[in-house]
Amino acid sequence: MSRVYNFAAGPAVLPLECLQEAQADLVDFQGSGMSIMEMSHRGKEYDAIHNEARENLKKLMGLGDDYEVLFIQGGASLQFAMIPMNWLGKDQTADYINAGTWGASAVKQAQMIGNVNIAANTQKEIPTRMPSLDEMKWTPGAVYSHITTNETIAGTEMKEIPETGSPLIADMSSDILSCPRDYNRFVMVYAGAQKNLGPAGAAVVAIRKDFAEKGSATPPTMLRYQTHIDKNSLYNTPPCFTIYMICLTTRWLLKQGLETVYANNAAKAKKIYDVIDSTAFYRGTAQKDCRSNMNITFRLPTEELEALFVKQAAENGMKQLKGHRSVGGIRASIYNAFPMAGVDSLVAFMKEFEKRNG
Amino acid sequence: MSRVYNFAAGPAVLPLECLQEAQADLVDFQGSGMSIMEMSHRGKEYDAIHNEARENLKKLMGLGDDYEVLFIQGGASLQFAMIPMNWLGKDQTADYINAGTWGASAVKQAQMIGNVNIAANTQKEIPTRMPSLDEMKWTPGAVYSHITTNETIAGTEMKEIPETGSPLIADMSSDILSCPRDYNRFVMVYAGAQKNLGPAGAAVVAIRKDFAEKGSATPPTMLRYQTHIDKNSLYNTPPCFTIYMICLTTRWLLKQGLETVYANNAAKAKKIYDVIDSTAFYRGTAQKDCRSNMNITFRLPTEELEALFVKQAAENGMKQLKGHRSVGGIRASIYNAFPMAGVDSLVAFMKEFEKRNG
Repeated sequence: MSRVYNFAAGPAVLPLECLQEAQADLVDFQGSGMSIMEMSHRGKEYDAIHNEARENLKKLMGLGDDYEVLFIQGGASLQFAMIPMNWLGKDQTADYINAGTWGASAVKQAQMIGNVNIAANTQKEIPTRMPSLDEMKWTPGAVYSHITTNETIAGTEMKEIPETGSPLIADMSSDILSCPRDYNRFVMVYAGAQKNLGPAGAAVVAIRKDFAEKGSATPPTMLRYQTHIDKNSLYNTPPCFTIYMICLTTRWLLKQGLETVYANNAAKAKKIYDVIDSTAFYRGTAQKDCRSNMNITFRLPTEELEALFVKQAAENGMKQLKGHRSVGGIRASIYNAFPMAGVDSLVAFMKEFEKRNG
Repeated sequence: MSRVYNFAAGPAVLPLECLQEAQADLVDFQGSGMSIMEMSHRGKEYDAIHNEARENLKKLMGLGDDYEVLFIQGGASLQFAMIPMNWLGKDQTADYINAGTWGASAVKQAQMIGNVNIAANTQKEIPTRMPSLDEMKWTPGAVYSHITTNETIAGTEMKEIPETGSPLIADMSSDILSCPRDYNRFVMVYAGAQKNLGPAGAAVVAIRKDFAEKGSATPPTMLRYQTHIDKNSLYNTPPCFTIYMICLTTRWLLKQGLETVYANNAAKAKKIYDVIDSTAFYRGTAQKDCRSNMNITFRLPTEELEALFVKQAAENGMKQLKGHRSVGGIRASIYNAFPMAGVDSLVAFMKEFEKRNG
């Protein structure tokens, strides 16, 4: 078995020890004679996994009993619709920051449902960046405000969480639990699982119960947060295997502690940004003060060189480095589970590639 | 490793050879150096799996290019809402058969959105049964009609598909691909994957494209069938691992052919029903002409004996035989992947249990 260094933006690399545990138990989960995939979601084995995953997430986020953690199918994309369906009523306004592709997607779904104020818009700016706190214009009395803490495609991350004056919701799909953060500042945080938490198939939603209660009762049952709170995410059959993997991954995170995870993430990112900053051959696409620790985006002098870079990196065991199809260039996604050795390998390759082609 | 006989109603038993293949490839998918869970959903490895799963399903259902097969998160429960959201407009009527818990759930979501005619209602009848074709009252000009071909909790199956006069939609969650059926009679067929197709985490939707086109444009993007048709179920990150398992399971079905699968299913069910019919100790809960080949429901003389039956069966390697919490009794779910040896084991146990306790 020879694992490659996997720079995919999501679905993305998972901790090797979690994959190995899942593999060992795949046909016979801990002596039960069944796969975790084959078990009733209301049986005792799965129940323990489900509740541990939820509790691990609450612990990692530092959330108390005023919050619930939910697993909802449909990824962040369905959350873009559920949020306004639950809270954005007629004659109300919600504030959104649009700082990239994902912020724009959230805005689009909200606009289909109600009145949206764009509190700041840097979506199309190059270099890519997050708006500064100064330029954000919040609506007094907004029903909620929505931010995207990390723009996966732009390679930017919000370094300071704004005071918005209204209940704050954050899409943290690509940087959740990658750094210490005060999760109690948010009425809701959500993330597609497939970057820092597990495989694809669920959005993790941390939600303040009193805010959920204020939701509208009009959406269909499956699209109401209150349904999933009332039923502990077991209103219908949950994506059991995805939640099982989230359980293993959050165990792995708890063993290290978020401070260590963050220190590693910052160190990994710095090594790559240092190479970028040491030469004109590589050009970072994000403004320096907004650089993401998760998705490092950069360009080479020509598209031909970029294609060659991706090809030769893959030949050297470094895969999925191609930038998002909407922007091109190179993207090195280095989520929590991405190993330092893979960063060292990329850094060495970048230096060598420049020498050969610079 | 000692596998038990797993009678769970869903998530349910999967073909052992599919689980073993998934296990072998879990950390390193076919020499790629990555798990299938870690790969971009737009990369070539996953792409091949995704398209094979879709094509396998089309082949098994005998569907041509006028249909598309989709993978949508949220299970059948989200489909209950999406169907009326897409097609049940103001001043229109949809017909529903309510023959059990799942039919009733579909009705409830549709009633939140528009006008519903209950074409027949046997939901609360004991013995449980499907309505006869005679008693179904269809609305001329209904925008669609909806049936549930197998009621998992009631243990009933629709033996003849009605002529409804309007576009026909079927929830086949618990008997899809368990028997030959003319899938071309339906404008849409859907099924939660976790019974006959794979693990939990997706609904498989087979939809006639011209019917999808008639849908309303008002639901949010993720809730419109046309979105998923246009994007080959890749509008957002799909539940890759669930679809991978569906790919393996449908390969396994294709190898056998649906006629063989059905013959096995019928033979498996007959063995258990024969024991039930040979004695007054066991009492089938479904009317004989509606008995399901997938979910076999029966009672014992007392609830104490039922509890003892479930307990002793488990001690003998036959697990998850307890009836649904809403109805009690015993339920033996024997989907496609359930082995004949497990049926023989149950049949022997039933006879012995009666001898000891009858």
